[in-house]
Amino acid sequence: MRTITWNDEKQVIEMIDQRILPHEFEILSYDNYEDVAGAIRTMVIRGAPAIGAAAAFGMAIAAQGSDAKTKEALLSDLSKAGEFLNQSRPTAVNLSWAVRRMLKAGEAFEGSADELRSHLLTLAKEIADEDVEINQRMATFGAALIEDGDHVLHHCNTGALATVDWGTALGVIRMAHEQGKQIHVFVDETRPRLQGTRLTAWELEQYGIPYDIITDNSSGYLMRKGMVQKVFFGADRVAANGDVANKIGTYMLSLAAYDNAIPAYCVAPISTVDFDLPRGDMIPIEERDAAEVLALTLMGKPVAPETASARNFAFDVTPNRLVSGWVTEKGVIYPPFNVNMQTALEAHSEHGK
Amino acid sequence: MRTITWNDEKQVIEMIDQRILPHEFEILSYDNYEDVAGAIRTMVIRGAPAIGAAAAFGMAIAAQGSDAKTKEALLSDLSKAGEFLNQSRPTAVNLSWAVRRMLKAGEAFEGSADELRSHLLTLAKEIADEDVEINQRMATFGAALIEDGDHVLHHCNTGALATVDWGTALGVIRMAHEQGKQIHVFVDETRPRLQGTRLTAWELEQYGIPYDIITDNSSGYLMRKGMVQKVFFGADRVAANGDVANKIGTYMLSLAAYDNAIPAYCVAPISTVDFDLPRGDMIPIEERDAAEVLALTLMGKPVAPETASARNFAFDVTPNRLVSGWVTEKGVIYPPFNVNMQTALEAHSEHGK
Repeated sequence: MRTITWNDEKQVIEMIDQRILPHEFEILSYDNYEDVAGAIRTMVIRGAPAIGAAAAFGMAIAAQGSDAKTKEALLSDLSKAGEFLNQSRPTAVNLSWAVRRMLKAGEAFEGSADELRSHLLTLAKEIADEDVEINQRMATFGAALIEDGDHVLHHCNTGALATVDWGTALGVIRMAHEQGKQIHVFVDETRPRLQGTRLTAWELEQYGIPYDIITDNSSGYLMRKGMVQKVFFGADRVAANGDVANKIGTYMLSLAAYDNAIPAYCVAPISTVDFDLPRGDMIPIEERDAAEVLALTLMGKPVAPETASARNFAFDVTPNRLVSGWVTEKGVIYPPFNVNMQTALEAHSEHGK
Repeated sequence: MRTITWNDEKQVIEMIDQRILPHEFEILSYDNYEDVAGAIRTMVIRGAPAIGAAAAFGMAIAAQGSDAKTKEALLSDLSKAGEFLNQSRPTAVNLSWAVRRMLKAGEAFEGSADELRSHLLTLAKEIADEDVEINQRMATFGAALIEDGDHVLHHCNTGALATVDWGTALGVIRMAHEQGKQIHVFVDETRPRLQGTRLTAWELEQYGIPYDIITDNSSGYLMRKGMVQKVFFGADRVAANGDVANKIGTYMLSLAAYDNAIPAYCVAPISTVDFDLPRGDMIPIEERDAAEVLALTLMGKPVAPETASARNFAFDVTPNRLVSGWVTEKGVIYPPFNVNMQTALEAHSEHGK
């Protein structure tokens, strides 16, 4: 099943509850956009592409739930819903990208309010389908970077669960595996939410790809010992210069890869690129509840002193100088990102003529 | 109370059980060296200097427990005990340093077996006292590196609990605080055993030093945001060229400090320097049970899939190029370590003449 999908019969959005995986598997249903925003905020659904799809479905269900009689009134309700959804998480740009795409489609649409409702639902489904298709295209480009026998290090979860289906960085690894390449994955646990241990390990078991979990702070040691040949991670927002905002830990991981001359690849669809933002240090970085860091128990006992305080930054920014290549649905973009990304976009647009 | 001490009345070694801190405080007693080795292996006691003291007391209690009638027979028993203790953990050199020091003292000793027993116990107590004194001397040298208002990042636990008392890197921070400097400490949690969250946070609360716990993978982000002015860590073994084997994560932390031009200091007594080992990549690195990585529970539930596997390297090696200075009891050694360490040793030896 997909991470997020539309249930036509019940007229609800369904999502896999990623907070309780891998030990419980539950599908949650949403019939209004406020709850969809809540699901994004509390990380029932996470991963930049999946959040984008959730925002698209959120806009579609906002249209369903509005009692506007005219297209103009409906667009006004949608604009409010979009603002609300945009505030659920600040870093991933796919969220605002999907909201904007839905709003623009609404503005350009000619027809009744009810026709627009139906049109927007169709578009949300298309965005979801498109995500899967884009992921598989990226996976094919990315898999060519992996050689038979490689040990690949992967950060956070960027698999089917982080997208509508298939995955970005983990989708690349999955594709290499399906192509028959013998690969082994080092899964860093990804504190504090442990998406590596919980979600990536679980996905790799489904795909039958051998892996070992490691602590985040040990990836540098493995690299120095020659135990890692490639590093792959996703992105929540890529600035116009190729700086990558991604799950906390990506910067230190990329730095260790660079120090050991190991290629580190960012895998993300072009919807993740924020062409309006010149540099990565301008990307807003979400600081989440300290409880996520302090909630840890070890052998059944709480770990931190009762009165402990913590800081919990959910993302960091990896400067473009540490990224060996950006795997997109238009191919692998090599540095300099700004120049070669533009070339790839223009080539595509010429091709489309 | 000290981390490790000799109880004269009961004729046992007493140690704080560091596995259950901070939520339980318990003293364990040891009356034979095999159990002392077990306590080192299972991390009842940890931290290179504390392990050194434990080995010294372990040798003393091996002498007490031996029924040898002659000095030669006792030395032979001690040699076996020393080999056994040496095998409890491979990376920290303080262990073999203390064993060797006790053996040499035994060989040089002139007197009966019983007199040697008493002599070795006195020497173990001296080694423990000396550790505290050395730590305070290092702390004074190191505290001069900290400025009023600094935010200091600290790795693992290097405090009173990692030593007989006072601490190495954390001892420096404690000294700066006692000198009236306003400082704040970022405590990285230090996966997988969480010595930062469990032990360092607990110690900082005792000392009244403000702190925040952070995940290991976020220290680089804080540095990029200008939130960290100095980095301090300890060492389990320093090679003759200044490469530092220390708790896993030190390499990535030092790399991030280097990338952001933030000074990173190693604080360790000269007993931690292995002058016989030219380079850090020759230091044996302990790989511990995968269960330490997989034992994690989050909100009461196990995190990893049931069939998950993991790799668990306990230490890494930080190349000397990433260390800004080595704080020792003979002062701060600046790069190049091999040259300046030698100068410091010679200056001291001249001074001693």
